[in-house]
Amino acid sequence: MNLIKESQNLIEEGIASALEGRGLPELYGPVSYTFSLGGKRIRPVLLLLSAAMAGASAEKALPAGLAVEFFHNFTLLHDDIMDDAPLRRGKMSVYRKYNANTAILSGDALMIMAYEQLAKCEESKLPVLLKRFNRSAIEVCEGQQLDINFETRTHVSIDEYLEMIRLKTSVLMGFSMFAGAYLASGDEDLAEGYYRVGEEMGVAFQIQDDYLDSFGDPAVFGKRIGGDILMNKKTYLLLKALETPDTATYEEIEKWLGMENPEPEEKIENLKALFMTSGAADDAIRMRKRYYESATRKLKELGGEEEAFKALQTLSAQLLLRES
Amino acid sequence: MNLIKESQNLIEEGIASALEGRGLPELYGPVSYTFSLGGKRIRPVLLLLSAAMAGASAEKALPAGLAVEFFHNFTLLHDDIMDDAPLRRGKMSVYRKYNANTAILSGDALMIMAYEQLAKCEESKLPVLLKRFNRSAIEVCEGQQLDINFETRTHVSIDEYLEMIRLKTSVLMGFSMFAGAYLASGDEDLAEGYYRVGEEMGVAFQIQDDYLDSFGDPAVFGKRIGGDILMNKKTYLLLKALETPDTATYEEIEKWLGMENPEPEEKIENLKALFMTSGAADDAIRMRKRYYESATRKLKELGGEEEAFKALQTLSAQLLLRES
Repeated sequence: MNLIKESQNLIEEGIASALEGRGLPELYGPVSYTFSLGGKRIRPVLLLLSAAMAGASAEKALPAGLAVEFFHNFTLLHDDIMDDAPLRRGKMSVYRKYNANTAILSGDALMIMAYEQLAKCEESKLPVLLKRFNRSAIEVCEGQQLDINFETRTHVSIDEYLEMIRLKTSVLMGFSMFAGAYLASGDEDLAEGYYRVGEEMGVAFQIQDDYLDSFGDPAVFGKRIGGDILMNKKTYLLLKALETPDTATYEEIEKWLGMENPEPEEKIENLKALFMTSGAADDAIRMRKRYYESATRKLKELGGEEEAFKALQTLSAQLLLRES
Repeated sequence: MNLIKESQNLIEEGIASALEGRGLPELYGPVSYTFSLGGKRIRPVLLLLSAAMAGASAEKALPAGLAVEFFHNFTLLHDDIMDDAPLRRGKMSVYRKYNANTAILSGDALMIMAYEQLAKCEESKLPVLLKRFNRSAIEVCEGQQLDINFETRTHVSIDEYLEMIRLKTSVLMGFSMFAGAYLASGDEDLAEGYYRVGEEMGVAFQIQDDYLDSFGDPAVFGKRIGGDILMNKKTYLLLKALETPDTATYEEIEKWLGMENPEPEEKIENLKALFMTSGAADDAIRMRKRYYESATRKLKELGGEEEAFKALQTLSAQLLLRES
């Protein structure tokens, strides 16, 4: 069995064990439900593999891994309320299956459960880990706020967009790699190098996510293709397409954005075509590749245990080539 | 200047300083607003006074004090959404002034800010403090869930009610006193004694809160008198009144609870009268007194620095005799 699969198994066991004997089904049932929806557990796998690469056992790193996975799932519970999202991983979101109040309170409990896991980390490492975790956690909230702010703004630059996804998505992947390396080595400088790898992987990951929302395979994507397009969501594709120097293309995009009650499939098909002709789709692939290559180059420079390094390489390639 | 006032000043300065330079007004503005509504800062004052009583400076204990105050205010932001509450301390709630999404996300940020403060505590004390804080925090969520569950249940016993308010209200006051004593002494057993004082004060405090909602002075209460009555809220008064052996009184209470579209003032006046005649109002005063006296007796047994002990005595008397 390879290291990625091994890590995923450990994480699933850890999740199950953290949920055991909790009582209060109205509070913890929605938490169990959210984990039952699956997910690739990317962040804790990154954390465990980074720990292995820097020389620590998966067992030593597991609580911190569970902390990031719990925190990530807490954000999903609350984001689905804010986005009024009916679906999560192809199934009903907690918010829709139960109600907003349940998603709020179960989400709150899940965030505290993240800190419960963090508190299990080696005591000498706890002060640094807690500070870093807090910083990433608040940055995720700031990223979500920026994302909300963008909804009502007319113009958002690509730089602003990249900063938003850095906060909303990348810092938690950065923290995951930081925590693994720091738990293994106690060396903050080394761990900082891991952080930067995770952060760049996060940006590549989010650009890929935007790309797949328009161009993914509906059979494996788990969400409706074109959901972002229908909501006029300011994704990398849309913002880049709006930077086109071609006035006709620009006006065509604006026409679709401003149209009241368009036929949904028609809007999706037309904007996808405009993402292609404007060069935005190609640019997204190029940017994703640039971040991916920079991350893997930095990862290689870090050195460390060979099998774990290879597993991290495999994982980042999978994330980049994924179709769901 | 007395110790209570001194502590309150330190806490206000600490709050202001933690909010400084945060940027993102959409996220942190509602947090500032919530603190601008005031409040007695009971929990951090308890924490600072416990620290002083057990021999530590207020400065040493301040970050933990801010942590409990931030956490408490986070719960208010989210509870107001769940309770659809328009008012908080006589002003618009964040949820009403802004909207639910803002109250969710700003609340999330505020919870993380609580952990940011906790992370500033002395490193050798951090592992124990973080574990205890997490335990109290998750218990507060469990208490809120029980409170929600009670809304749709036909019968709730006084014991179940006391367990709910222990979780929802008392454990955070218990933690406050634990943390102060532990930061001062590093002695978990001593701090456990402080915890029990805070927990009992919390129960007295909540019974008082229920009592004031019906019998408080409207000029100083800050909320509409009888709000709990209009919502058929299962308070100590109502649950106790329903335990009356007098069938006529019981049926009269049930009549008001089941009435569709009653005249509000009439319902409030009649149920208040029933709380009196059933003996529930007197019983609430008696129970509150019992918890208060047990807490102050235990506090005295703890020994410790005299001025801080006296300030804690004064504070608990104020909390019990308060009319708002």
